[in-house]
Amino acid sequence: MPRFNPLVETLAAPPIPSVFAWGRAYDGRSGPMIDLSQAVPGYPPHPRMLELLGECAASRAFTGYGPIEGEDGLRTAYAEHMSAVYGAPLAAGNVHVTAGCNQAFISAAMAVAGAGDMVLMTDPYYFNQETTLAMLGVRTRFAPCDPDNGFLPDVSALADAITPDVRAVALVSPNNPTGAVYPPALLAAVYELCESRGIWLILDETYRDFLPEGAGRSHDLFTRAGWQDTLIGLYSFSKSFCIPGHRLGAITAGERVVEQVAKIMDNVQICPPRSAQAAVAAALPLLADWREENRREIARRAETLRATMAGVPGWRVGAVGAYFAFIGHPFEGASSAHVAEKLAKEAGVLCLPGSYFGPRQEGYLRFAFANADQATIALLRERLSGFSLAP
Amino acid sequence: MPRFNPLVETLAAPPIPSVFAWGRAYDGRSGPMIDLSQAVPGYPPHPRMLELLGECAASRAFTGYGPIEGEDGLRTAYAEHMSAVYGAPLAAGNVHVTAGCNQAFISAAMAVAGAGDMVLMTDPYYFNQETTLAMLGVRTRFAPCDPDNGFLPDVSALADAITPDVRAVALVSPNNPTGAVYPPALLAAVYELCESRGIWLILDETYRDFLPEGAGRSHDLFTRAGWQDTLIGLYSFSKSFCIPGHRLGAITAGERVVEQVAKIMDNVQICPPRSAQAAVAAALPLLADWREENRREIARRAETLRATMAGVPGWRVGAVGAYFAFIGHPFEGASSAHVAEKLAKEAGVLCLPGSYFGPRQEGYLRFAFANADQATIALLRERLSGFSLAP
Repeated sequence: MPRFNPLVETLAAPPIPSVFAWGRAYDGRSGPMIDLSQAVPGYPPHPRMLELLGECAASRAFTGYGPIEGEDGLRTAYAEHMSAVYGAPLAAGNVHVTAGCNQAFISAAMAVAGAGDMVLMTDPYYFNQETTLAMLGVRTRFAPCDPDNGFLPDVSALADAITPDVRAVALVSPNNPTGAVYPPALLAAVYELCESRGIWLILDETYRDFLPEGAGRSHDLFTRAGWQDTLIGLYSFSKSFCIPGHRLGAITAGERVVEQVAKIMDNVQICPPRSAQAAVAAALPLLADWREENRREIARRAETLRATMAGVPGWRVGAVGAYFAFIGHPFEGASSAHVAEKLAKEAGVLCLPGSYFGPRQEGYLRFAFANADQATIALLRERLSGFSLAP
Repeated sequence: MPRFNPLVETLAAPPIPSVFAWGRAYDGRSGPMIDLSQAVPGYPPHPRMLELLGECAASRAFTGYGPIEGEDGLRTAYAEHMSAVYGAPLAAGNVHVTAGCNQAFISAAMAVAGAGDMVLMTDPYYFNQETTLAMLGVRTRFAPCDPDNGFLPDVSALADAITPDVRAVALVSPNNPTGAVYPPALLAAVYELCESRGIWLILDETYRDFLPEGAGRSHDLFTRAGWQDTLIGLYSFSKSFCIPGHRLGAITAGERVVEQVAKIMDNVQICPPRSAQAAVAAALPLLADWREENRREIARRAETLRATMAGVPGWRVGAVGAYFAFIGHPFEGASSAHVAEKLAKEAGVLCLPGSYFGPRQEGYLRFAFANADQATIALLRERLSGFSLAP
């Protein structure tokens, strides 16, 4: 057999399917499965969203090729939406629509870094960002996030890690896996660091719409003069509209970055899937109240999770935020994959091992608590309290 | 401003939008625009296709994440379809669904080659395959196709070009841009060459469904023992179902290749857009007769093009096939982009310059004749006969 690309061959298999396999092996002994594995909303899309998706997909208007950068309608609607969200004058030309946020990340990463270059990430990291860079031959370096500081990145550690081969810092806030919401001042400090060192800041805000009550704006970076020369923002429509299967995300950047991304995206898929773009463009203003209600609901779920975990001896909440919690398990020395597998198969709690997000995270599990309603989350108290690693 | 990835920054801008700009600059002086630029069917999708797309997109069943490799239903339906097309026992596990054939190509290419490796292509080549490899840092070498032999690749030239750093030969048949349909014996010879040299054959058959009457099977390669260790087939649902805006293509390969591609696709987009997959799975058997009628219609268009061009002094048909014709223009020494731009702006004929497909192709233009009906194609006689480069 001819050889494969060793950068791809040595990648681990995608983690989510193997976790699903643990779930399928659960015999129901502890009650219905509590699925906290994948970041998918636990509630359905709005009926109007489904109608719009159906109407647009049935239309001949979207069967041909569309613009590489995305439908004009969605670029305009999303730019208007972001202008309000960030209090910044963002225009359609600042938007490149992608088929989900993983695609936004790979396109942004390729625009600024090639094989042999370095991208600086945090530890823990979102695994697909790490594997994306690895398969491209882009080297990675990790600035540790201190568990005792709510898993926030340390700006001076980032600064120390920026060597001349570093092309970008990649951050995720609200964070995946920890849920930590990076304060505006922290994001500003990292932005200023990147600006002063002449490198890009790639900021993934997939979970931006799920900030806690009264959190205010996530940052003011898009209002700064010259932001186009430092900041590349990433986003996903999957979580807010409950439509990950329709694959829609976006890059927000200066026009020169959008131009580079368009060259990449032309090769990756010519244009994003069109009919869903038209549907989301219409839904963006229409479903604002519905999205706000979901934000509140998920904030309530976060509170329920905090309260529930406080009643489980030995387990610790490392961080909890928009969509995720990073939970310290009590089994010192055990691998997080072993704990997660046993949790799934015996306690019927499906979550991701911390080690999927970095080798230093064996003590943790990622709970995608947004997937489960408050009553289900409350069941964790009994499930986790009664769980042991003993055979 | 921080630097971009030089492999991306030095790529030319995507060519199709600049050609559209020429079209928009046409003032209508010679009659309605004849658009032979992009490979999009000139007829609409079947009404049942649109209904299915609408029904599936409106369904909650496809809003969540789906399998990385594609929907089970489409993988199974397409494997059954191919088993009939190729007379070979292909299974769902041999199929990886992608968002269009460009994505199938980049995933296949990344699976077998990384930065610094070499992929062997033909000259002329499909430009997105060349830019895809360039932006990944994969080097390319080109085996010339002889215009006097209908632009078929020369197997001994390919053999001579296979140095130890070559990981794959990439072919497109029916060809883009020339339209040349590679005979089964030629494909067999290239396959055997790749097999004997221990490298991959990536065979893009996007235009497979538009073979001329009585052409028989395009090749028997999927029936050969051990094909999984040499052949990676690519395909697009865009052309046959007239739905490029829904972005669906596929890779056909051995299970070990599919496993590598899945790791890449997980990073590129997690899963292909789901609802269109379900719609095409249903349409694949339903619309077989409709696709066959389209095949015949496009074959008639090819005949009309041949007959029309025979009446245009000085112009030559370099090759004509499934979807495209590669047409020699009479303006020796002129750049093909100059000829194409003037043709668009003055004669109202929109096509792609030969140089987009390789620097040696300045004497040619690509006509995507499948876009135009026979009556429109016949108009080329007057438009081209009356056209001159003189100001």
